[in-house]
Amino acid sequence: MPVRILDVREATVPIASTIRNATIDFSQMTISVVAVITDAVRNGQRVVGYGYHSNGRYSQSGPIRDRFIPRILAADPDDLLDDDHDNLCPARVWATMMANEKPGGHGERSVAVGTLDMAIWDAIAKIAEMPLYALLAKKRNQEASGRVFLYAAGGYYYPGQDMRALCDEMRRHLDEGFTAVKIKIGGASLAEDRKRVEAVLEELGPHARLAVDANGSLDLRMAVAYGEMLREYDLLFFEEPGDPLDFALQSVLAGVYPHAMATGENLFSLQDARNLVRYAALRRDRDFLQFDASLSYGLTEYLRILAMTEAQGWAPSRMLPHGGHVMAMNMVAGLGLAGTEFYPGLFEPWGNLPDHCRIEDGYLTLPEAPGMGFEANSALFEAIKQATA
Amino acid sequence: MPVRILDVREATVPIASTIRNATIDFSQMTISVVAVITDAVRNGQRVVGYGYHSNGRYSQSGPIRDRFIPRILAADPDDLLDDDHDNLCPARVWATMMANEKPGGHGERSVAVGTLDMAIWDAIAKIAEMPLYALLAKKRNQEASGRVFLYAAGGYYYPGQDMRALCDEMRRHLDEGFTAVKIKIGGASLAEDRKRVEAVLEELGPHARLAVDANGSLDLRMAVAYGEMLREYDLLFFEEPGDPLDFALQSVLAGVYPHAMATGENLFSLQDARNLVRYAALRRDRDFLQFDASLSYGLTEYLRILAMTEAQGWAPSRMLPHGGHVMAMNMVAGLGLAGTEFYPGLFEPWGNLPDHCRIEDGYLTLPEAPGMGFEANSALFEAIKQATA
Repeated sequence: MPVRILDVREATVPIASTIRNATIDFSQMTISVVAVITDAVRNGQRVVGYGYHSNGRYSQSGPIRDRFIPRILAADPDDLLDDDHDNLCPARVWATMMANEKPGGHGERSVAVGTLDMAIWDAIAKIAEMPLYALLAKKRNQEASGRVFLYAAGGYYYPGQDMRALCDEMRRHLDEGFTAVKIKIGGASLAEDRKRVEAVLEELGPHARLAVDANGSLDLRMAVAYGEMLREYDLLFFEEPGDPLDFALQSVLAGVYPHAMATGENLFSLQDARNLVRYAALRRDRDFLQFDASLSYGLTEYLRILAMTEAQGWAPSRMLPHGGHVMAMNMVAGLGLAGTEFYPGLFEPWGNLPDHCRIEDGYLTLPEAPGMGFEANSALFEAIKQATA
Repeated sequence: MPVRILDVREATVPIASTIRNATIDFSQMTISVVAVITDAVRNGQRVVGYGYHSNGRYSQSGPIRDRFIPRILAADPDDLLDDDHDNLCPARVWATMMANEKPGGHGERSVAVGTLDMAIWDAIAKIAEMPLYALLAKKRNQEASGRVFLYAAGGYYYPGQDMRALCDEMRRHLDEGFTAVKIKIGGASLAEDRKRVEAVLEELGPHARLAVDANGSLDLRMAVAYGEMLREYDLLFFEEPGDPLDFALQSVLAGVYPHAMATGENLFSLQDARNLVRYAALRRDRDFLQFDASLSYGLTEYLRILAMTEAQGWAPSRMLPHGGHVMAMNMVAGLGLAGTEFYPGLFEPWGNLPDHCRIEDGYLTLPEAPGMGFEANSALFEAIKQATA
């Protein structure tokens, strides 16, 4: 029976926190949460697809309500269906949302469409009665176990924080089962950041890895200085040294910093991702690409980005999406990506682990709940339901 | 006396039209209009700065109201002033708006900030009791006559339009005093577009020039085919052949199409503009850069872009901003840019000429009204006042 979208709802929720990185503080941060209500029924329940977006960009209530929901609801419902007419077609819903949008200008709009697209995929997988990761793997003729590598992202600058508190935080991550952690750099002096790196490396010992993230804060001179400082250490990766669009800075660093770098979380389209691959001198054998589907026109666009990077010789195992939520985890498990970040104790409940799930030796195994599995994450699902009621 | 911003208002207005270009139709188009109300009084009137943004992107009501107005109103008023404390400082207001915004993702947000920034500049010039173009020229130690080269942008695809109607439209532009016109291409077959170009060139005769605009619609193969077709004609420029971020396509075309090209209206930041200059093989001796301040974080960011392009050897006379409104005209006159477009009869009153002004031999002379001169344009000013009342 043809599926119909009956309604789409949006709500803005605070995701405030006292943390800060090198470029912003999170005290006023908000996100959009959406619900796509369909007429499909599975297991006696109406299928509702849910989505939200990663932290760091703000709620997209305006464009979602003014442009993207109206276009979906105004479309001929048959134009949103796949060829068999028994499920929604993500590419057709996507094209409907993007009608009358000019090329270029990939920010905010990309978050609005990305958030809705994640909800469309949640609905599609629920209608197919499969976990999203299993559906994604099936489309690539692969099996998926639901196993996901997660590293603990933290090490923010807190007001008044000392080195002991930073090391204690890292110790807690190890105790929770992580084998890799990430800390912020670029928000203090180079000398202070070196101390942070050395203190954390000593705390971690030989069995865990450290990554560092400058959040795009360094100019060329400082990026080179940090590259020269950091290359003395055995880091998992050095993330986003300079402005995300400064491909020349990134390519200069490839000659300074010989170990793995990671970037891409602030590039929000296929076109921007392609320019990174074309111009930034990133190295297919070691660097990581961190495009975030929820901020970048959704999983539908992410699959196009993945096709582009694979055509350019990048293995899916070089993709390390930004996000820190179960949507990115589904993508990692379903598409065979390297892993994703996780923010223990931050951005709750939006970054929570599914109920009864534990990190073991750096890995999590997703439950077999249909869709994204939001329903298998009680605090998160309660917040989603409340916001979109 | 220190100037204070008392309030900032935003309104969304339709700018709908039946026209379409190669990528979008304009039937649902909206824009944001803003008013920055100050406590300054000049000539017995409270100074209010106004701004809006170019057509083609939608109203930014959401981010303007949720993030940018609150940040301006929450700031310490002294932090928004210039060193002499007798006027607003555009860069300080800009930095206040952009606090807690991550790098990258330059779309929508760039329109929101751009719109507010144009209003800030209108207020600043009014407080200085100068036309904005004169203020801009003074900052560069130059004189400005208010003279602006304008070309008539039109030649859209209308439902059911025939070649005669297209030529009649071009004839009207010549009769109004224009010496250059622009038509759309890429929304019909190459053969049909060739006929359009040839018919218009014949209508124009030897004393006027034709430009063509593909609105970013062509893929690499079609862009090359159009370049090979168009190089047979003596065109003023060939605008935006492919996706605005596809610098590789643009650089390939430099080897195919020897005459002037123009692009940049869909790149919305200093970083994106710099990448165009770095990677697209544009030619400083003939090509045009079309960055649009109102869509790209405002005149404040445009001055940074201009400093970057000048440092890269681009004369201001290669800058041809997108827009079709009096804000772009002020920039052209004040900064010595090549000119700007004008849409006769379209997007009224937002693209209207100032009262009693006529195009003579392709040029307009702006009146000496303070600020952007919105008040010297009755239909436009009435619409602005109504929207922001």
